Amino acid sequence: MIETPYLLFLGDAPDQLAAKVAIGIRDWRPENALGQIRLPGCGADLGLTDMTLAEAKAAGAKTLVIGVANRGGVISQAWKKVLIEALEMGYDIASGLHNLLRDEGDLVAAAQTHGGTLHDVRVPTVGYPIANGVKRTGKRCLAVGTDCSVGKMYTAMAMDAEMQKRGMKSTFRATGQTGILITGHGVPLDAVIADFMAGSIEYLTPDNDEDHWDLIEGQGSLFHVSYSGVTMALIHGGQPDALILCHEPTRTHMRGLPGYSLPSLEDLRDTALAMARVANPACQVVGISVNTQHLNEEDAKAYLAKVEAQMGLPTVDPYRHGAGRLVDALAAI
Amino acid sequence: MIETPYLLFLGDAPDQLAAKVAIGIRDWRPENALGQIRLPGCGADLGLTDMTLAEAKAAGAKTLVIGVANRGGVISQAWKKVLIEALEMGYDIASGLHNLLRDEGDLVAAAQTHGGTLHDVRVPTVGYPIANGVKRTGKRCLAVGTDCSVGKMYTAMAMDAEMQKRGMKSTFRATGQTGILITGHGVPLDAVIADFMAGSIEYLTPDNDEDHWDLIEGQGSLFHVSYSGVTMALIHGGQPDALILCHEPTRTHMRGLPGYSLPSLEDLRDTALAMARVANPACQVVGISVNTQHLNEEDAKAYLAKVEAQMGLPTVDPYRHGAGRLVDALAAI
Repeated sequence: MIETPYLLFLGDAPDQLAAKVAIGIRDWRPENALGQIRLPGCGADLGLTDMTLAEAKAAGAKTLVIGVANRGGVISQAWKKVLIEALEMGYDIASGLHNLLRDEGDLVAAAQTHGGTLHDVRVPTVGYPIANGVKRTGKRCLAVGTDCSVGKMYTAMAMDAEMQKRGMKSTFRATGQTGILITGHGVPLDAVIADFMAGSIEYLTPDNDEDHWDLIEGQGSLFHVSYSGVTMALIHGGQPDALILCHEPTRTHMRGLPGYSLPSLEDLRDTALAMARVANPACQVVGISVNTQHLNEEDAKAYLAKVEAQMGLPTVDPYRHGAGRLVDALAAI
Repeated sequence: MIETPYLLFLGDAPDQLAAKVAIGIRDWRPENALGQIRLPGCGADLGLTDMTLAEAKAAGAKTLVIGVANRGGVISQAWKKVLIEALEMGYDIASGLHNLLRDEGDLVAAAQTHGGTLHDVRVPTVGYPIANGVKRTGKRCLAVGTDCSVGKMYTAMAMDAEMQKRGMKSTFRATGQTGILITGHGVPLDAVIADFMAGSIEYLTPDNDEDHWDLIEGQGSLFHVSYSGVTMALIHGGQPDALILCHEPTRTHMRGLPGYSLPSLEDLRDTALAMARVANPACQVVGISVNTQHLNEEDAKAYLAKVEAQMGLPTVDPYRHGAGRLVDALAAI
């Protein structure tokens, strides 16, 4: 668990895109985002109050979250100065960077001296069990994609937000570093040891109230040869009651794999459902989430209508039109 | 790479079953097994020459291989005495034990002093790449199972041995600790970090001659919820040209999962083949390997004939009747 609220460190982010993690926190957990802190030349702006470390501390900030990618994979001296000062003031620091805070001697020393915690959210800190497949109480929904990076996290986040708004019981369950930083907890599944992948998802989505839904963040794709094993572990460890199919209609090939075309939504439905029913025979595919960011409004609507007719399932772009119909579908099962 | 030949350490194995790893080495790589060394009270006997460390060293042994499970997960003082003496004499030591040689200070010290290597084959020592899915030259065969522990390693080993006998080009590719100790190299797949699983199998089975076959050791099962992700990574990283279906007909439920029944061979065929064709559209299911150890000869023959008629594929128990027909089927594609 990462302590909230956060002060969001944007460093010297060249542009808004580099601050993706911070934007996610601001959009999905605004109550966690007290303010932002930027270095000279920073090209990103979350529209939050710019605060010094001292101001944010006085306002109650517990953790400085690195909400930006670093250039060249190096934690620069300019960053270090802020991070060490933060530790000296009693902050914890949380990071999803590839290079780890814990590998920086000066940060480790400052954290030890001042009693702060360094959260490297890419690295598992729990000894996960091997999955036992025992049926758990409560309900679970998993987003599965025709490809990587087609909007699975966004879909689960948007559904969770809609369910909260309706007063339904739900929890977004993060399985990647962005989701973990946004919510403060989760499993960094891509860094878990092979034998414990499914078990880590059982751990993440324990017994719950019968009317509670876990919205599990998907990873990879059963059809992406680099990461399909991770996806499979999510399907079997998550033992979902409901699947949402996620798709990006303008992809010409699988992400990072020029020789590989995308599966059809029918192939995804049939394959993922058959695999999910091994762990949960009652599993159903309840809806389709399409990322239409590269289509204009008219084309997007036409595409969604076509897929809805073809697949016989509610089909929406939750970013454009909200996740309401997907939540309706969940509520109906 | 573990240096051969080996002296096989049986320690105080309570019985023959505890010496499974050593038996595998003796059976599959007899040329690597110079002799055995046993402690008082050892209940296992490989039928190899009992040798002292000095005798085996004089005969050319390079590595002392721990061919036995230890009791209670502790490396006892009685074992330590032999292991340290071996290091002092210039041996390397190889182990697939859960508790690692490298975590034993006295072994590490002796290895450093005398220049020996401690091989803990459960732990990856290579920084594997992320899989790129690029088609590789040469051919690959993967054994996939209806369940864990149904004879996938045995099947691949037996096929490799048969192919060697026929003068075909083949290599057994180990993906678990027993296979790695037997052959001296491989990937301990169940200990690889999730993101690199498929990449580790690409690394293990690189470009090769067009008429060369890798016989890849299978792991887990697509239908075993604890380990299905590992199996999926093998299917996509291995990009097999041929699949062998493996089955044990007397299992009443999935291994370790009392609530889970086994899939049919048809389900395994259809699911594994569809997934394999994502990475290699030319993949075929070529044969079936049945572990009939719990059936008498008559029942085994009847069962094999029934499955062969039902599935339309050569169906054998390679332990009872040899792997010849499976190799015939491979050679025909």
